[in-house]
Amino acid sequence: MQDSIEQYMQTVGQQARQASSILAAASTIVKNNALSAIYTALKNSEPKILAANQIDMTQGRDHNLDSALLDRLELTPTRFKDMLHGLKDVMNLLDPIGEITDLAYRPSGIQIGKMRVPLGVVGMIYESRPNVTLEAASLALKSGNAIILRGGSEALHSNQAIAEAIQHGLKTVGLPETCVQVINTTDRAAVGQLITMPEYVDVIVPRGGKGLIERITREATIPVIKHLDGNCHVFVEAHADLHKALPIALNAKTHRYGVCNAMETLLVDEKVAEEFLPRIAELYAEKQVELRGCLATQRILGATIKPASEEDWYEEYLGPILAVKVVSGMEEAIQHINKYGSHHTDAIITENFSLARQFLARVDSSSVMVNASTRFADGFEYGLGAEIGISTDKIHARGPVGLEGLTSQKWIVLGDGQIRQ
Amino acid sequence: MQDSIEQYMQTVGQQARQASSILAAASTIVKNNALSAIYTALKNSEPKILAANQIDMTQGRDHNLDSALLDRLELTPTRFKDMLHGLKDVMNLLDPIGEITDLAYRPSGIQIGKMRVPLGVVGMIYESRPNVTLEAASLALKSGNAIILRGGSEALHSNQAIAEAIQHGLKTVGLPETCVQVINTTDRAAVGQLITMPEYVDVIVPRGGKGLIERITREATIPVIKHLDGNCHVFVEAHADLHKALPIALNAKTHRYGVCNAMETLLVDEKVAEEFLPRIAELYAEKQVELRGCLATQRILGATIKPASEEDWYEEYLGPILAVKVVSGMEEAIQHINKYGSHHTDAIITENFSLARQFLARVDSSSVMVNASTRFADGFEYGLGAEIGISTDKIHARGPVGLEGLTSQKWIVLGDGQIRQ
Repeated sequence: MQDSIEQYMQTVGQQARQASSILAAASTIVKNNALSAIYTALKNSEPKILAANQIDMTQGRDHNLDSALLDRLELTPTRFKDMLHGLKDVMNLLDPIGEITDLAYRPSGIQIGKMRVPLGVVGMIYESRPNVTLEAASLALKSGNAIILRGGSEALHSNQAIAEAIQHGLKTVGLPETCVQVINTTDRAAVGQLITMPEYVDVIVPRGGKGLIERITREATIPVIKHLDGNCHVFVEAHADLHKALPIALNAKTHRYGVCNAMETLLVDEKVAEEFLPRIAELYAEKQVELRGCLATQRILGATIKPASEEDWYEEYLGPILAVKVVSGMEEAIQHINKYGSHHTDAIITENFSLARQFLARVDSSSVMVNASTRFADGFEYGLGAEIGISTDKIHARGPVGLEGLTSQKWIVLGDGQIRQ
Repeated sequence: MQDSIEQYMQTVGQQARQASSILAAASTIVKNNALSAIYTALKNSEPKILAANQIDMTQGRDHNLDSALLDRLELTPTRFKDMLHGLKDVMNLLDPIGEITDLAYRPSGIQIGKMRVPLGVVGMIYESRPNVTLEAASLALKSGNAIILRGGSEALHSNQAIAEAIQHGLKTVGLPETCVQVINTTDRAAVGQLITMPEYVDVIVPRGGKGLIERITREATIPVIKHLDGNCHVFVEAHADLHKALPIALNAKTHRYGVCNAMETLLVDEKVAEEFLPRIAELYAEKQVELRGCLATQRILGATIKPASEEDWYEEYLGPILAVKVVSGMEEAIQHINKYGSHHTDAIITENFSLARQFLARVDSSSVMVNASTRFADGFEYGLGAEIGISTDKIHARGPVGLEGLTSQKWIVLGDGQIRQ
């Protein structure tokens, strides 16, 4: 079995590599026509896809999947419509491929610049939500990449039905069906293969729980665009305008709980703690947010506040819990964030120009903010049009990753006969 | 022993990580003062460094190192001067850190942009030439990164003497000496450790033979900026101006043989082969370049031309040998380059606008050229100021890599109280 999976994955890889060279040369109009044909094919296959999804749902219930998972798995007519709407959005994005920048003359007389090109083949590993199949495929196609999709076993029928429609659309416009391939086995060995074929796959994009992503990162021999923790901070500095600090601290924690850009630790300068903490605590109490505070926080808010342990500073609660620490000033705040944080998104609230400038320079996170809610760290809010994911890496892509994350740049040199002296 | 090496490398890694956070916040003037102090320290240590180098040279001769290696190992007073000159050049480069680009307003009212930041800690693995120690250290410092250097065992004394002077310079301006560390053991296990400490090292830059680089890439769990083969092509298209094609084909092959951007295969359109091949063959004959041709080439140039085997098309000769193939046109040329080439640097010689445009778009190489010699693929010729290396990867850095290759970008968000709706 192991052998035949290896062979199967090798074939999938080879086919993707071949398809990628055709896609890389495809014009914007061909790629958009493909997306449009996929739109039509999906629309025509709606009953078939929803029926396939019902098989997954029935099997999921038989296997006692938990209700949150079943909810993410389900494709309703409304969700199907949203999925098609997302495809239209991708169609309307600018084609990033072929863009030439920084073209300039050198003393030798050559002109040198950079041209944006596809990465080649993307490997996507994800769980439950079948709409990711279409989202990932359409973003890959728009950026001229072939893609190999490995969804969760619980969504196999849904994903294959969606893939079938996608491949039908590709065929209609004369592109190879192998531009988008869905792994047809639920054997875990297939993932092991996918992430160790650098000859066929250029980048891996995992979406799922932290355990999955850590395992993939550890075992992959291919670059991974990965997203781990979001342990975000808001630091209310001594010069903060509390009319800004209060709504931001409330929004960053309570706008949505289960998201990576929600605040998990609130830092407050001791010079404003006596004034600020009771007021924000009242707002949190209305939302039933549990506070876990340092000694100074407990002293100010009263002993009913639970104490924060060392582990709390590291925690990504993803729920209505917040760690609160009173700090002696800027220096302690930055040290705390760089030590305990996950380098995701951190904000300072201050009216002091020099401190804002310092915070921006010294906090080592993928998004650093002044006087804004951490909840803004998002591809759509940043104007990227679409979001492949949020990267917690520094190499290649950092923070919210748009279509550009699936591209690279090559150098182009234009001359009229120059030789090297 | 294995245990103590692991412990030693952990300490080196921790120290580098700590130093990197101080360096990341260092202003341009502090970094330039450090480079200036290092300049003075090296000048004062010249006799000591040259003496250390003589120990390495004596040991090298005792160990029967080959003469090419000994030549690369030797530090003469002239080479020492050149090394210091290179340091001055790095001092004069613009500081890339802190540069903010693309700052623009979003509909929500936040301003969003990107700020250039150091990667953190660079691990450099290299062979023989001790001047790389200073070059790598100065580029890392200029870009705000700490660096761990692992030179060849044959250069240990030279590298340590240079590192001592560098650390003296760092101390003078109050920066931690651990900004630049040289591994003091020649045990190979140290390399194994260095490339598997993602918690302390952000990127690995290897310089050396292909075997070394392949091994590092295979075993590393950290991104590697790597350079493998340079199998470069020049394609003389049917519309080529032979007054440009002849000097370029000559220059690309014979300007220097042992370099990665030298041409290794010449492709000639059958429509100009009869005219072009005899003329270029005469020029190559003067330089005693051995030609290995396809059947058509042999037919045109005579049976004295050796036949090219399938392997020849893959070969990076790094010497006065050239494979020559007559092709039916653009399509065959592009297929050949993308199949047999190493995606390094490839050029077309043509006066046809549309074919030039097509070649630029479809050749999947880190540098694609029109009417210029492949020898231009070089950080200095491209105006990068300094060259970390030439990357054959697509992720993070591609082609000649300058100071930017040791940096990343983070998002910055500026607001005046915005919250997410």
